[in-house]
Amino acid sequence: MSEDIRLARQRSLAASFAQAPMKKTFGMELSFDEAHRAVFHLPHNPNLEHALHDTHGGVIATLLDNAGWFTAAVEYDCWIATVELTVRLLEPARTEDLRAVGTLLKAGKNIAIARMEVRSASDRLVATGAGTFAVTTTAFATPSDK
Amino acid sequence: MSEDIRLARQRSLAASFAQAPMKKTFGMELSFDEAHRAVFHLPHNPNLEHALHDTHGGVIATLLDNAGWFTAAVEYDCWIATVELTVRLLEPARTEDLRAVGTLLKAGKNIAIARMEVRSASDRLVATGAGTFAVTTTAFATPSDK
Amino acid sequence: MSEDIRLARQRSLAASFAQAPMKKTFGMELSFDEAHRAVFHLPHNPNLEHALHDTHGGVIATLLDNAGWFTAAVEYDCWIATVELTVRLLEPARTEDLRAVGTLLKAGKNIAIARMEVRSASDRLVATGAGTFAVTTTAFATPSDK
Amino acid sequence: MSEDIRLARQRSLAASFAQAPMKKTFGMELSFDEAHRAVFHLPHNPNLEHALHDTHGGVIATLLDNAGWFTAAVEYDCWIATVELTVRLLEPARTEDLRAVGTLLKAGKNIAIARMEVRSASDRLVATGAGTFAVTTTAFATPSDK
Repeated sequence: MSEDIRLARQRSLAASFAQAPMKKTFGMELSFDEAHRAVFHLPHNPNLEHALHDTHGGVIATLLDNAGWFTAAVEYDCWIATVELTVRLLEPARTEDLRAVGTLLKAGKNIAIARMEVRSASDRLVATGAGTFAVTTTAFATPSDK
Repeated sequence: MSEDIRLARQRSLAASFAQAPMKKTFGMELSFDEAHRAVFHLPHNPNLEHALHDTHGGVIATLLDNAGWFTAAVEYDCWIATVELTVRLLEPARTEDLRAVGTLLKAGKNIAIARMEVRSASDRLVATGAGTFAVTTTAFATPSDK
Repeated sequence: MSEDIRLARQRSLAASFAQAPMKKTFGMELSFDEAHRAVFHLPHNPNLEHALHDTHGGVIATLLDNAGWFTAAVEYDCWIATVELTVRLLEPARTEDLRAVGTLLKAGKNIAIARMEVRSASDRLVATGAGTFAVTTTAFATPSDK
Repeated sequence: MSEDIRLARQRSLAASFAQAPMKKTFGMELSFDEAHRAVFHLPHNPNLEHALHDTHGGVIATLLDNAGWFTAAVEYDCWIATVELTVRLLEPARTEDLRAVGTLLKAGKNIAIARMEVRSASDRLVATGAGTFAVTTTAFATPSDK
């Protein structure tokens, strides 16, 4: 796949994410780094805390899922579906901003595999994870298609 | 552990959860069934959708984490921490209300293990998962202690 | 899929497994129950112990993988590949014989998902697991094809 | 923990592993690298193949489990137990020799977490994994104690 196609897909994916209700509810920002890895930034959001006032593990899971999904999705011209996700919570996030990054391990015909990590603003390794993403037959309609 | 202690802990856990910001953000309700399993009910919430307007996988992960955590937490008088969580997304949630239930597999001295599932209002099996929870030395302050 | 086809595939899979070197090295036996679930029986084998003389976790992982793979494989006329496997070791196997069973959670076009468990001869729940299996384009050559 | 203690523990662990029946059955060799990571080498062993004559996924799982377990065990003076293991099979091993390495992610009071990978002799990334290991109260009797 050419660099140009990857960059065009990243723009489409970013435009799609900009419309996602979950983006607004959490306050997440998506970008892609030079290695075509999806990077999510989550400024600390008190609405996403559990009862002991730390960031909820489900929020970390969401960041990991997103980082893996968007990294893998660049490789395909159709929609992919998260099939399975493992989440390892190494340290509490405390009230720090968080940053999640995905790394592609495999981009096969039927499935993609990525590993992901979440670090705090002070660069503590807060969580690691990995996921399997199934390639579907649903075309990924980019905003420019509409 | 006596039935009375388990019921008292469930009340404490429910009171704690009622204060959790994440509860309000998602709109989740917690109850416990007769087998002491934590049950979470999530009425469909459009704010928790991804760009294709289905419930985000991270929301399912949150329900699974909660169902396992609160089921395991009943067995301990101190705080537990989710160490690891696996999430399997079998079917899209669509716009259905969701119900998550945890089942205790092990309540050891240092760790607990639970398996969890999420079903839709129409009883489709949407997701399964399992998790490991580490027992900490942080006392679980029940509201009545304060 | 008809009952007859499933039974024919089970016979093919069993014939294939009978030739597997790993079967002989471990001493595993395969059967299928009435719900078309693969069942593996492993009589205690001292050669598969770790240094503290209990059955090695990798052996439990092998039983879980096999139970899931053979349960899922019945649903397809081509080879499937284990993509991902989670293993939860709840109790030591001690020196008991072991029995693993798989349960199909999903049989999709591209991937199958199963959950599995291992019980001891005394019916202790020794381990649980789950796995994702990708459908490949490699035809599954049954022995009768040769 | 001092360098000397870590090296002494590695010698004890290696001596223990040398007695493990599973070592001999598989033909695995253990060493530790300069970063105190456990490294397992498995020369291709036809007895560990599945019916299509590739190395069985359960063998890969065993290598991952061992690499994580022995890397984590260096940090403790008592026995640890694998609680949970995730295995991701990225490529077939074919008939290549395999090398597994563990990396410590966390060494807590009650649990340790490691991630692991398996590469082929030609340095293909064959599998990745991660695991949770619970610290037990069973003393780890080194051979020199006897």
